[in-house]
Amino acid sequence: MALQNVLIDGNWREARATGSFQSINPATGTALADEYPISSWGDCEAALDAAAEAAVLLGQVPTERVAKFLNRFADRIEGRATEIAETAHAETALAKSPRLSRIELPRTTGQLRQAAKAAIEGSWALPTIDSKLNLRSCHSALGPVCIFGPNNFPLAYNGICGGDFAAAIAAGNPVIAKGHPSHPGTTRLLAEEAFAAVGETALPSATVQMIYHIGREDGLRLVSDPRIGATGFTGSRAAGLALKTAADAAGKPIYLEMSSLNPVVVLPGALRERIEKIADEYTDSCLAGSGQFCTKPGLLLLPGGEVSERFVMQVRQRFADRPVAPLLSPTVQKSLDASVKKLTAAGAKVVIGGDVVVGDGFRYSNTLLRIDGAAFLANPEILQTEAFGNASMIIVAHDVAQLAEIVTKLEGQLTGSIYSSTVGDDDKSYAQLSSILRQRVGRLLNDKMPTGVAVNPAMNHGGPYPAAGHPGFTAVGIPASLRRFSQLECYDNVRKNRLPPLLADRNPTGKTWRLIDGEWSVADLKA
Amino acid sequence: MALQNVLIDGNWREARATGSFQSINPATGTALADEYPISSWGDCEAALDAAAEAAVLLGQVPTERVAKFLNRFADRIEGRATEIAETAHAETALAKSPRLSRIELPRTTGQLRQAAKAAIEGSWALPTIDSKLNLRSCHSALGPVCIFGPNNFPLAYNGICGGDFAAAIAAGNPVIAKGHPSHPGTTRLLAEEAFAAVGETALPSATVQMIYHIGREDGLRLVSDPRIGATGFTGSRAAGLALKTAADAAGKPIYLEMSSLNPVVVLPGALRERIEKIADEYTDSCLAGSGQFCTKPGLLLLPGGEVSERFVMQVRQRFADRPVAPLLSPTVQKSLDASVKKLTAAGAKVVIGGDVVVGDGFRYSNTLLRIDGAAFLANPEILQTEAFGNASMIIVAHDVAQLAEIVTKLEGQLTGSIYSSTVGDDDKSYAQLSSILRQRVGRLLNDKMPTGVAVNPAMNHGGPYPAAGHPGFTAVGIPASLRRFSQLECYDNVRKNRLPPLLADRNPTGKTWRLIDGEWSVADLKA
Repeated sequence: MALQNVLIDGNWREARATGSFQSINPATGTALADEYPISSWGDCEAALDAAAEAAVLLGQVPTERVAKFLNRFADRIEGRATEIAETAHAETALAKSPRLSRIELPRTTGQLRQAAKAAIEGSWALPTIDSKLNLRSCHSALGPVCIFGPNNFPLAYNGICGGDFAAAIAAGNPVIAKGHPSHPGTTRLLAEEAFAAVGETALPSATVQMIYHIGREDGLRLVSDPRIGATGFTGSRAAGLALKTAADAAGKPIYLEMSSLNPVVVLPGALRERIEKIADEYTDSCLAGSGQFCTKPGLLLLPGGEVSERFVMQVRQRFADRPVAPLLSPTVQKSLDASVKKLTAAGAKVVIGGDVVVGDGFRYSNTLLRIDGAAFLANPEILQTEAFGNASMIIVAHDVAQLAEIVTKLEGQLTGSIYSSTVGDDDKSYAQLSSILRQRVGRLLNDKMPTGVAVNPAMNHGGPYPAAGHPGFTAVGIPASLRRFSQLECYDNVRKNRLPPLLADRNPTGKTWRLIDGEWSVADLKA
Repeated sequence: MALQNVLIDGNWREARATGSFQSINPATGTALADEYPISSWGDCEAALDAAAEAAVLLGQVPTERVAKFLNRFADRIEGRATEIAETAHAETALAKSPRLSRIELPRTTGQLRQAAKAAIEGSWALPTIDSKLNLRSCHSALGPVCIFGPNNFPLAYNGICGGDFAAAIAAGNPVIAKGHPSHPGTTRLLAEEAFAAVGETALPSATVQMIYHIGREDGLRLVSDPRIGATGFTGSRAAGLALKTAADAAGKPIYLEMSSLNPVVVLPGALRERIEKIADEYTDSCLAGSGQFCTKPGLLLLPGGEVSERFVMQVRQRFADRPVAPLLSPTVQKSLDASVKKLTAAGAKVVIGGDVVVGDGFRYSNTLLRIDGAAFLANPEILQTEAFGNASMIIVAHDVAQLAEIVTKLEGQLTGSIYSSTVGDDDKSYAQLSSILRQRVGRLLNDKMPTGVAVNPAMNHGGPYPAAGHPGFTAVGIPASLRRFSQLECYDNVRKNRLPPLLADRNPTGKTWRLIDGEWSVADLKA
């Protein structure tokens, strides 16, 4: 069978492949028809050369045209929505609707359009002007961005159209997308639309490039190549840390979103008030998308007592009642089983589940583990193993003091939630726990589960290491996500006719926010 | 002789020393009286524990009090200005006036006061609010910051009072300062005033800590310790990269300002117009402070021709006429000589200088090297060796095309300057060269030498690797420099009485800029 083509240097062309792979329908376990190449370093080399050239050309393209590309791309995705959702469904077993076509696809096109708007508006770049010294600075494109998309969002995080892609392009950089091998067909469709939109808007043809898969060593080489500006990665901790080491050694920025347990603390007053509601919310958040979200609550913490025991039983019942949905791939199934076994070997007890489901495709029983606080504290590292998929663990602590001790042992997390009484019964415990939790999480929630990441300027989808690679950046939330793929550029005494539009005396759009002599303003600079 | 005490955990106490050292008067070469400890890991351990505790306490201190500390500290430095300048002069041979007492000391106190103002005002944290979703985020303290100051600014970059210190404290973090061994007496005086100001403003007593010197391995351990939030470093590339490797591996942010050649391109039209003025400016910029600035122009590039030859001769004359001032230390002298020898071995010709000056203290002749463009291009890596001190190299290129080729070979730099005709004669060359140079420098200058870094919101004192560790951050320029020492924190559905003041409905100062529903505003949030 002929291998699918890769998109390099403005052409869909044969890969210089070192091997090939097929995607598998996770609901049935059968391989899908098409065969995709694993690219050699030769493909990466060609993509890097083309991207470096495109980066220079892109620097001369008006921002409006870059924005037009993002908008056209969004339109084109919508024009092919049915085929995209069907392909993604076949490759991931995620529901065609609502998940793929009514949630993830609109989120994807929404991100592209928000990024387009941010690119034109320009405030993302934090333009800063000192009129007396004629000193001006802003964030600006930094060169080709390499993006590694994850398995769990075939659209919204796909390297060729997701949040990192939108941010990198909007900041003015060409993208080399490395698809995830679990949904190459989806990636192909999206890359086709991206490339068509590049043509329609006359961007440099290597503004978007896509390869399906590469070997590990080539990945490390790619992120540390001198031609690369920065890298965005969403995926497993092991892969992320290997890429980070390589990029760091070369002095190349890399933004990683890795593992997270997203601890949820439930205080007694909240449980007394609304035990069923919280059990529902926790179950929904654990099992939606078979638990394959970066923000799935992998850990729920509560102090012991009769009401807590009731809560565990209520969750157990819900986990038992819910259908088991397929996982994304055999890899996810295998790794979930290994994680659950690692946790139980370290002392966690199975409340329900804990088994591979035999039959069609790749499934795992809805799994609830529990452990008591002292046992957790005896082995806090192993017991923070991420179980990616439809599994979660409840830690039943002795009391709030022990809860606090447990929270101090937690690694950096994307999120942390606290449920508390609405009438103030838990306020003292909240104060104590939230200050410890706050330092360890990127997003602190009240009375809410962490899944469902709004694409909003105030969002932080990031957190302290090892949840992310750097605690100061977010992968979701425009305009902040754009700044990851930028460098800070200062113009000192540069003549006015040589300044970029964003830093000219005249406000480039009439509505771009700029920090002029210490005040944010949309006005022109006084002559 | 008794060793000087270190400042750890709120006490001036004996170091657990592994050795000791004295500072040397670089003008005479004689050792100064006091003896200072090289701290063991035991001292670091104690400082880390105390800093971790101070970080928690500091989180509960109102920002106004942190600002008060910074202002009081500035006042106290001024109150002891004469002794500080005299000590710094004895340890560095930098002029007491104007350099130390009239330039660097006011810059230092100015930075502290600007940081105090920024801390109170709060806009540095980019507070961002979505009122519909009740989603709010801002940058916030991230934990103890370790600061390694350089040899060349005993006050303005000193780990215990310089720009990184001011930024880290203003962002709400305690500081562990590691002094530079070439000016320990100055560091002691400054640490005494810092600690006295801590007492006066009742901050946690370990908010500022200071050790004089540590071994290499302990430095690597310090920046990667779990209790550390981030590190700021200014100094040599070798030391910086070693610390970066250690911090990166532990997932700890580290901000480095390392070497830079600060290329200056002089185009023919500019030379024809004002050859003497440019020769003066270049000479001043190369020899001020014996060339011991991170932004000293280490490289000047110009196309060949009669006027260029005349320029070289004019600079030669000026370098010959200027007195030779002492270097900061025997280390700087030795390293400057080694760099010059490396450059000449690689093909650079000595126009003037190139010798250690025999006699009192540590001096090196004002040194001008030259090389032609083709020779540079034959060996561009070695020929970018930094010669820290009063030396610079002129590259005489064949033509503008060759200049462009040379600029593409340049490593990441803090700055890059272009001098051009004021009547448009060089505009084509400017356009060609500036777009290449722009990508390689943090600050692009027109008709101006790079020394003299204004402490200004629009400044960028940073640049692409290896000039700095990350191209998106500046070490100078408040408020941006504060964000290095922060993490992004999001509040999702958090109850209003639990929000930090910066994110409350009410504007905390009535004049804090916040991004509310997409608009920068100093208003309260509508209820």
